[in-house]
Amino acid sequence: VQRNQEFRMQIAILTYDRMTALDAVGPYEVLGRLPGAEVVFVGARRGAVRTDQGSLGLSVDATLADVSRPDIVLVPGGPGQEDLMADEPTLDWLRRVDAGTDWTTSVCTGSLLLAAAGLMTGRRAASHWLARHRLADYGAAPVADRVVRDGKYLTAAGVSAGIDMALSLADWLAGPDVAQTIQLTTEYAPQPPFHAGSPDTAPGHLVEAMRAASRHTTLTP
Amino acid sequence: VQRNQEFRMQIAILTYDRMTALDAVGPYEVLGRLPGAEVVFVGARRGAVRTDQGSLGLSVDATLADVSRPDIVLVPGGPGQEDLMADEPTLDWLRRVDAGTDWTTSVCTGSLLLAAAGLMTGRRAASHWLARHRLADYGAAPVADRVVRDGKYLTAAGVSAGIDMALSLADWLAGPDVAQTIQLTTEYAPQPPFHAGSPDTAPGHLVEAMRAASRHTTLTP
Repeated sequence: VQRNQEFRMQIAILTYDRMTALDAVGPYEVLGRLPGAEVVFVGARRGAVRTDQGSLGLSVDATLADVSRPDIVLVPGGPGQEDLMADEPTLDWLRRVDAGTDWTTSVCTGSLLLAAAGLMTGRRAASHWLARHRLADYGAAPVADRVVRDGKYLTAAGVSAGIDMALSLADWLAGPDVAQTIQLTTEYAPQPPFHAGSPDTAPGHLVEAMRAASRHTTLTP
Repeated sequence: VQRNQEFRMQIAILTYDRMTALDAVGPYEVLGRLPGAEVVFVGARRGAVRTDQGSLGLSVDATLADVSRPDIVLVPGGPGQEDLMADEPTLDWLRRVDAGTDWTTSVCTGSLLLAAAGLMTGRRAASHWLARHRLADYGAAPVADRVVRDGKYLTAAGVSAGIDMALSLADWLAGPDVAQTIQLTTEYAPQPPFHAGSPDTAPGHLVEAMRAASRHTTLTP
């Protein structure tokens, strides 16, 4: 992908402890390759956050105060999103940057954060299949699609869905040749060995086991 | 996924500057959810490495000397692999841990590192489609498949192929119910908006443009 030196597009990816790493890294791998893209990982403090499985930290190069006018904001999900839904500085930052973005995006339970900030009221949105129903608590309409667009709000289903969302966004931002070149660079021709990636296609006993487990915890994977 | 407290399986993921983040994070998201899995990100120095696009650092919790007997080793690819192919401490570590692993694995150009360490001689292996031919320089047989198994050596094609590889490995290690539960948790039901993830299916002019660009650089994406 050739970079146009005259065009700059800032993409802010929110970070927080116990986020799911792939929610952020999947879209990053795609969007960061767009011409003129300048990605910044932003969080409450510079340094690093620890992702949900505990073995991986992601760098945080900028504080919320450092990033006030991104062109695109991306909010990943993960168990840590639960605490953040009551964190006024984060919700306030989301509202402030959303006022200036071209695209406000989320992956997995990140859409619950956008919803808690009041940004999804009356809008259609995706989320992780186990958490999707909670969007209604914030006046949003849960949609069981992998990627949902409502105006400039682009939300993806669980974890890996962020890759598909980012490729669609790459197409809209830079055209099909750029999007397809990024897909070819990342060799994204998926061949999952099973068809269990959705509750509609996974074995019923596994779907039920996950639903039962989620009833007994506050887990929102 | 329930964790069996009595069973421990150490999975070492090699890190280095200018590696491709998704090569490591895709498989991590899958393998880290296996019962008993203990993932450690290992590198030349504790701290962090900066991935190839420059905007993301990954934590490094252990040095090469700290990790001597992992059950599984995973070697990601990325442009930084080029320098590492002449780095004797890294190659020596790969040889030493490989002597004790149950599985030695790679994503993307990570297989070139395994090959440079002398571990793939006479073996079939996958790599990024633009770099695959270089495996022959080390006596390995390049295979144009997404995931290639040769004994305990499991190698994946470019970047995103590591997710598919990890799901297959999850199946072999823990059975189809665990593997499918992980696939359902990460909602891995891919819907790429294009079919450009492989040189066999991408538009010819884009494949040719990438081939031409790779001839003029040492880039091995």
